[in-house]
Amino acid sequence: MSVELLQSKAADFDAVDPLSSFRSRFQLPEGVIYFDGNSLGPMLKSMPERISKTLHDEWATGLIRSWNDADWINLPETVAAKIAPLIGAKPECVTVTDSTSVNIFKVLCAALVLNKGRKRIVSEKNNFPTDLYLVEGVRDFLQRGHEVCLVEDDLELFDSITHETAVVLLTHVDFRTGRMLDMEALTKHAHGHGALVIWDLAHSAGALPVHLDEVGADFAVGCGYKYLNGGPGAPSFVYVNEEHLGSAWQPLTGWFSHKTPFAFDHSYEPNQSIKQFLCGTPPVLSMVALDESLKLWRDVRIEDVRNKSLKLAEFFLECVSASGLDDEFSIATPLEHKDRGSQISLRFQGDGYAVMQALIARGVIGDFRDPDILRFGFAPLYNTFGEIFRAVQHLKEIIEIGEWQQARFMERKAVT
Amino acid sequence: MSVELLQSKAADFDAVDPLSSFRSRFQLPEGVIYFDGNSLGPMLKSMPERISKTLHDEWATGLIRSWNDADWINLPETVAAKIAPLIGAKPECVTVTDSTSVNIFKVLCAALVLNKGRKRIVSEKNNFPTDLYLVEGVRDFLQRGHEVCLVEDDLELFDSITHETAVVLLTHVDFRTGRMLDMEALTKHAHGHGALVIWDLAHSAGALPVHLDEVGADFAVGCGYKYLNGGPGAPSFVYVNEEHLGSAWQPLTGWFSHKTPFAFDHSYEPNQSIKQFLCGTPPVLSMVALDESLKLWRDVRIEDVRNKSLKLAEFFLECVSASGLDDEFSIATPLEHKDRGSQISLRFQGDGYAVMQALIARGVIGDFRDPDILRFGFAPLYNTFGEIFRAVQHLKEIIEIGEWQQARFMERKAVT
Repeated sequence: MSVELLQSKAADFDAVDPLSSFRSRFQLPEGVIYFDGNSLGPMLKSMPERISKTLHDEWATGLIRSWNDADWINLPETVAAKIAPLIGAKPECVTVTDSTSVNIFKVLCAALVLNKGRKRIVSEKNNFPTDLYLVEGVRDFLQRGHEVCLVEDDLELFDSITHETAVVLLTHVDFRTGRMLDMEALTKHAHGHGALVIWDLAHSAGALPVHLDEVGADFAVGCGYKYLNGGPGAPSFVYVNEEHLGSAWQPLTGWFSHKTPFAFDHSYEPNQSIKQFLCGTPPVLSMVALDESLKLWRDVRIEDVRNKSLKLAEFFLECVSASGLDDEFSIATPLEHKDRGSQISLRFQGDGYAVMQALIARGVIGDFRDPDILRFGFAPLYNTFGEIFRAVQHLKEIIEIGEWQQARFMERKAVT
Repeated sequence: MSVELLQSKAADFDAVDPLSSFRSRFQLPEGVIYFDGNSLGPMLKSMPERISKTLHDEWATGLIRSWNDADWINLPETVAAKIAPLIGAKPECVTVTDSTSVNIFKVLCAALVLNKGRKRIVSEKNNFPTDLYLVEGVRDFLQRGHEVCLVEDDLELFDSITHETAVVLLTHVDFRTGRMLDMEALTKHAHGHGALVIWDLAHSAGALPVHLDEVGADFAVGCGYKYLNGGPGAPSFVYVNEEHLGSAWQPLTGWFSHKTPFAFDHSYEPNQSIKQFLCGTPPVLSMVALDESLKLWRDVRIEDVRNKSLKLAEFFLECVSASGLDDEFSIATPLEHKDRGSQISLRFQGDGYAVMQALIARGVIGDFRDPDILRFGFAPLYNTFGEIFRAVQHLKEIIEIGEWQQARFMERKAVT
């Protein structure tokens, strides 16, 4: 297909895009095509006013009274109620607190306590590193003979879950490749073997429909700063299945997890609700930013997001192929829709880091993951088909004229 | 002393106050006398511009690039370097991350791992509840026979620390009464018995000089949102003695605690620096707010803050006494300077909650702690002697005309 035809196809897709109106609600920089919303979502235009209100009216003027008067005390619930429908959960099963890493620790501990007769923890070798590090942390702290089984290949996952498995910790959509696991089948299989399942939804929440209650997931955690656009380091969410509320217990028993935090009792009484998964005082500014970003979802159906995401990705693949880049790049992301999230990852045989730096220099922002992966995350609320067309044109030019060679010897940045 | 004389004394003190210029750097609401900076410090006037820059230039425009270009990645160190001199610590022994509660958990675990041959944890029954709850949390999670010894009276503290004590967890300045412990003597005593010491500096940092390195404290944690004015739920700091860096290990082993987080290694390698006490991605907006608030301290000597704090408190006590309130209120705070922090707590036999509500209705904001304590925190960077005079006049009137009786039957607020 000719360049002109691809370009006009992009224009046609954009013209009939039912989500096209949402892009104008984001503050996107001029001259940038942003495919890194799976790492840090952009800012909503409404954000500065909301934060300014929190600073001036709530903090500066209300001072300590704002815990009541501005309802800061209920921010974990207020924010959670906006996330719950996106992950198929009852609001009372979700709260928002701490970082994803801290929350992984909590649910992992809770699962091991619930299933304390068993010693095996199953995860994937390619899981996001923080998940694996926390498994090691809990195991090494407890020193109770837990064994960590890291599966090298998705296909081995089912077989690795046995009647000895205490807990399975899986990331729904792989951060490198965008591969999506079958949440329903794996949860069912694990339950059939008496194992509990924790789902890390970092690359799922806000990108595609998730049905935690329906599949019977035991625990889940997720990220506020990727597809939920909550701002850098936005707080994370935790899900606990209704069935475990009141019986599940996590050891970060800070005062916000107490039955009556402001009674200042000497001894600990766990809150019987999802609040037992809170810990200390929440970072209000960051919580408010996440709350503001989530307002967008009142007007969006997650199914529409998923449909456009798949279409964007298909068009990206079509552009790559039509641009003759098939020889240079291989596709790391599964082709079947049911097997992938909202990104396309390309493997490059040469210096992939340099190629991504060359793209970024041209204003096309994705990111690079060792050893050879260029990631392009698609966020249907602001990405367009026209952007995809232009991004792949840039990529083609960079390869054709060897522009990436210039970036080969640059120092790697701290965060890649 | 007559009311007129007290008033003129206040004016005289304010006229010669070497810290008087700092008040104008805070955005304080009209008609409010704020003695609750020990619960939530007020906002600096420079804050909105700094946050606006972070929102517009760093998040919205820089997007993911700001982790490098705006140096978000180094915020824990940047902020810690500003806190270190206030607590008598080398910058490389301090980091800023998570909430105080989460950090208490970390240092408690680290101390128990370091001193693993011993089973006793010593603290005070009147310690801030979150500290006690976390001791229970760690003990119940480990199930390794740890025994918690909660001392009822400060005087018993020394005797309770024995050769069986693994760790002593103490809050330097008591949140209810403002009583300050002898950090040096207790640390020395504990070390003499082979115990490790954790100091909770929630009511010390920014209020008075602390000398962690000098006294040889093992660990410390503290709060960013009280006397450091970092904003509601600001991140907390952690101190680890140089001697333990590299050997101390905490189990919340999220990716930011890894030796090379962005190498995305499969297995955990602890960072050998203070960074091992980080966990997940930091909440950037809240970190930036704390960073901004700490800039003030470039121009302030903590010794001057302490001097004024004691003088404010003395004048408060003088006003209470001169106003004939001695019969109504007793002083819960130790009178000796070396034994108290930066607050005065009054006990009231009647409905203390109602008295505080009546004060707040008149614009004098302190807070109430069950069962009978009215807390007045003094922050020398913005509080004046004139405010103290006026606040006590209000208190006198409220008692004289029984104004507090009106507030007796009101519903207690969620946060008190």
